[in-house]
Amino acid sequence: MPDHRAILLIRCPDRPGIIAAVSGFLFRHGANIIDFDQHSTDDEGGVYFTRLEFQTGRVDLPLDELRRAFEAEVALPYSMDWRLSAPTPPKRVAVLVSRHDHALLELLWTWQRGELPAQVSLVISNHPDLRSAVEGFGVRFEHVPNGRDQREAAEARMVELLDGAADLLVLARYMQILSGGFVSRYAGRLINIHHSFLPAFAGADPYRQAHERGVKIVGATAHYVTAELDAGPIIEQDVARVSHRDEVEDLKRLGRDLERRVLVRAVRLHCEDRVLVHGNKTVVFA
Amino acid sequence: MPDHRAILLIRCPDRPGIIAAVSGFLFRHGANIIDFDQHSTDDEGGVYFTRLEFQTGRVDLPLDELRRAFEAEVALPYSMDWRLSAPTPPKRVAVLVSRHDHALLELLWTWQRGELPAQVSLVISNHPDLRSAVEGFGVRFEHVPNGRDQREAAEARMVELLDGAADLLVLARYMQILSGGFVSRYAGRLINIHHSFLPAFAGADPYRQAHERGVKIVGATAHYVTAELDAGPIIEQDVARVSHRDEVEDLKRLGRDLERRVLVRAVRLHCEDRVLVHGNKTVVFA
Amino acid sequence: MPDHRAILLIRCPDRPGIIAAVSGFLFRHGANIIDFDQHSTDDEGGVYFTRLEFQTGRVDLPLDELRRAFEAEVALPYSMDWRLSAPTPPKRVAVLVSRHDHALLELLWTWQRGELPAQVSLVISNHPDLRSAVEGFGVRFEHVPNGRDQREAAEARMVELLDGAADLLVLARYMQILSGGFVSRYAGRLINIHHSFLPAFAGADPYRQAHERGVKIVGATAHYVTAELDAGPIIEQDVARVSHRDEVEDLKRLGRDLERRVLVRAVRLHCEDRVLVHGNKTVVFA
Amino acid sequence: MPDHRAILLIRCPDRPGIIAAVSGFLFRHGANIIDFDQHSTDDEGGVYFTRLEFQTGRVDLPLDELRRAFEAEVALPYSMDWRLSAPTPPKRVAVLVSRHDHALLELLWTWQRGELPAQVSLVISNHPDLRSAVEGFGVRFEHVPNGRDQREAAEARMVELLDGAADLLVLARYMQILSGGFVSRYAGRLINIHHSFLPAFAGADPYRQAHERGVKIVGATAHYVTAELDAGPIIEQDVARVSHRDEVEDLKRLGRDLERRVLVRAVRLHCEDRVLVHGNKTVVFA
Repeated sequence: MPDHRAILLIRCPDRPGIIAAVSGFLFRHGANIIDFDQHSTDDEGGVYFTRLEFQTGRVDLPLDELRRAFEAEVALPYSMDWRLSAPTPPKRVAVLVSRHDHALLELLWTWQRGELPAQVSLVISNHPDLRSAVEGFGVRFEHVPNGRDQREAAEARMVELLDGAADLLVLARYMQILSGGFVSRYAGRLINIHHSFLPAFAGADPYRQAHERGVKIVGATAHYVTAELDAGPIIEQDVARVSHRDEVEDLKRLGRDLERRVLVRAVRLHCEDRVLVHGNKTVVFA
Repeated sequence: MPDHRAILLIRCPDRPGIIAAVSGFLFRHGANIIDFDQHSTDDEGGVYFTRLEFQTGRVDLPLDELRRAFEAEVALPYSMDWRLSAPTPPKRVAVLVSRHDHALLELLWTWQRGELPAQVSLVISNHPDLRSAVEGFGVRFEHVPNGRDQREAAEARMVELLDGAADLLVLARYMQILSGGFVSRYAGRLINIHHSFLPAFAGADPYRQAHERGVKIVGATAHYVTAELDAGPIIEQDVARVSHRDEVEDLKRLGRDLERRVLVRAVRLHCEDRVLVHGNKTVVFA
Repeated sequence: MPDHRAILLIRCPDRPGIIAAVSGFLFRHGANIIDFDQHSTDDEGGVYFTRLEFQTGRVDLPLDELRRAFEAEVALPYSMDWRLSAPTPPKRVAVLVSRHDHALLELLWTWQRGELPAQVSLVISNHPDLRSAVEGFGVRFEHVPNGRDQREAAEARMVELLDGAADLLVLARYMQILSGGFVSRYAGRLINIHHSFLPAFAGADPYRQAHERGVKIVGATAHYVTAELDAGPIIEQDVARVSHRDEVEDLKRLGRDLERRVLVRAVRLHCEDRVLVHGNKTVVFA
Repeated sequence: MPDHRAILLIRCPDRPGIIAAVSGFLFRHGANIIDFDQHSTDDEGGVYFTRLEFQTGRVDLPLDELRRAFEAEVALPYSMDWRLSAPTPPKRVAVLVSRHDHALLELLWTWQRGELPAQVSLVISNHPDLRSAVEGFGVRFEHVPNGRDQREAAEARMVELLDGAADLLVLARYMQILSGGFVSRYAGRLINIHHSFLPAFAGADPYRQAHERGVKIVGATAHYVTAELDAGPIIEQDVARVSHRDEVEDLKRLGRDLERRVLVRAVRLHCEDRVLVHGNKTVVFA
């Protein structure tokens, strides 16, 4: 099975010898490195990040034993925070959506075309409207009403549906507020698409805000959700040029294209284990 | 003189017949329209904006008499706020600068190459450092010290230098605060380059702010200066992609390129009478 | 019916007075101009192009009589090539497609979302694969086998299906050669999406060509089809940055996004009567 | 001297263990890796490229002995084509230019501001016009007339000036043809800026070609010069959007900005040893 692969993500205090230790370990065990990215923050007492992708076909140990050996021989001495994952089976992705379907459908389309290394397993919406569209892709759809007065019940129901069934949760224009408890339950695996070039126009109705400010460029931002609204680590952003001719509706139309593109890129990066979080920032090994 | 041109800028309440009235007037007087842009805000009781460029070689009246006739026959009946200007002589541009020379030098270079339809007539700096660079372009340089305790005297001296000598005042990374009085004296003809994608990262040290927020795109914004800091009408913006690898110094370097480009574009647009202000927004007939 | 609109497209020899004549005519007949673009080529004996959009609610004549009056009073004296069209009913769009579905589905999606001012009326494919996807949008699907030996029959069948049923014909990655006769029958209303930044990499397999040449940017081009392959008037182009890491398959994936975006923009521009052809170039009033 | 750095560039047949061998060697000798990029072509019998930047402050051998040890212990067993270079002293850059000064001045400016890790040591022009501008930067200027009938003498004189005095030769809009002998003498260290988005519009007058073709985007390309005109390995490209309004002169103005930006980026990448050539393509570790 020479084509089988695994991905090793590491975060640790920066110091000499890390690359030699990691690559030496992998070489001794028959792992052929095919992709290698690294980054270190420049500060005194900097942090080192790396992502290695290697072929597992000739590795001399089962993956679990390789993990144990790595922990003992490399990770412990270098105080590493690390994860070794196989791209198979792919991550299970659940999507929360309200009425706007563009970001959801772009995800489903891209996935159906085989361009998203993931398994879209579940769509939850607080409206029933998108059921047939979703089920047309062979994906389970659950209608979970939500709103100011039923938040607790809604979230309980969603947790029930999601637990053990989703590795990543994507907010594809989900217009309900999520509680701090819900957000922290999915910390680091909850991605939102915000329809502005954050930190500009955080909060509600960003296209109207952008129109009122008269900006010449609008954008969209995919980020991990944290307790603080629209302030989580940014994964990906993109922009489009606009002019005085563009009304709020034009900005929304242009924005939908940005949102689709930016969200799919962010989900792909996450599913390929290319994003590491560091404080409120990301290291993206694109 | 068939190649001589004039530019007519109009803002007025929107209603039927404006184009027919304006173009009919110009045709009757022998003016050949060569460029025509228009925009109307969509709101009830909308506002109509237009910019016409026409050849004056066969116009049957001197420009001043044409102005009087236009006022009586067209502008008054349609309640127009208007301006008829000739591109010759070009607008006189004065530049305020501190120590960063990139935006200033880009302006001088572009002007020297004949690509800026303007006359750069004066550079004022609160530091003496750039004198020889500026004078090398054959442009007058004045050192006017400024700072918290000498603002009033500094601004008085600058007004003395500028009055009657500058049609446009450009802040090319001028790091001193200007008083409300100074700003309002040059209302509508005072352009600043801000080193961020406004409204994100208004205020001081925007590249540091951008680095701390972990954005994936940085920008620069050229805007008219108003009493409210960094909130005036935006003329032009541009952006560049960055990553976790870029330190604050990298953002500054990338930003300098954006600032140069965006400021020169904004100054060119203003000098070609292509920018109309409407509230805190601009209509740019690019 | 104050909201009803019409669009007037004009091409004529450039000379003074055209705007006054056209706008005066429209004003006298109660047409309120809401959008006005113009362009003139600078050459001696230049050509003038204009697009006017106006409200027809208070026009004093039926559209056909207005046309006759315009022909007599304005078009004839100024030797105009012109067209007055109403946006309702919208243009009927037929799509030719082979197996790649991305460009087709983007068109159908955009149209279904109400963002394409058109009526997608028919999809013809030389493969049966996309029938259910297309019919799911409520659009008629016809399988017309095509190939080297059956070109004549195939085109005869397509003409039968298209004549009187389509105002615009879109090649959304249709991989069969069309005869000169077929192309000329739909001259000016046959749009193709080419998967390169034309004129670079015309002909077959442009992503492989781009990969072999080692370009750092790839693109897509929407153009009107003419007798000469890949050389017709360009309507719209867009690009994406690539690197040595991108294999041919990556370029194809990135390219699919470009193709989708560029084709939809071009079809929208055409359907809004914003594109005028001049020799092998276009004037696009975006 | 913990801040001193060295750069190791390697090209070799791809096989397991390269990273472990290289990083193990550097670690044993006290070199702290601070930047590490790699790429391997995917073909059977692929080629592996890597660039390592490391601190030399605690290296246990003089650089020359380290080179000998690396050759014996690592490079030979892995059949490496490699180069170990120190960023100090910086590469000496000579520029060939004709009359257009924008690309040259951008290089000089960027260098003067300390943003180009190089030493601009010499400018040669076939016109005397730019002498004072160049000498104002403290850089030597040599006027070497060139043309159809004096090519041989001109190139002999240039070789005399350049040999031993330049590590990189930049054609900043040098409008004379260079002989095959001259080009091959500077193979791999001769960079040209072409004023189009190659391979579109190779050859003369590309902005006129672009205008005639009616493209909606123009570009510029920096590439290594090879015997075949405009066909050498591309280092960097960039583009700008244009429209039917842009005349050839407008394309030239927009293009000058692209040329400046693209050439400086390419020269910086080369001077930082970030570009490896592979056939007619480049691997750029940006």
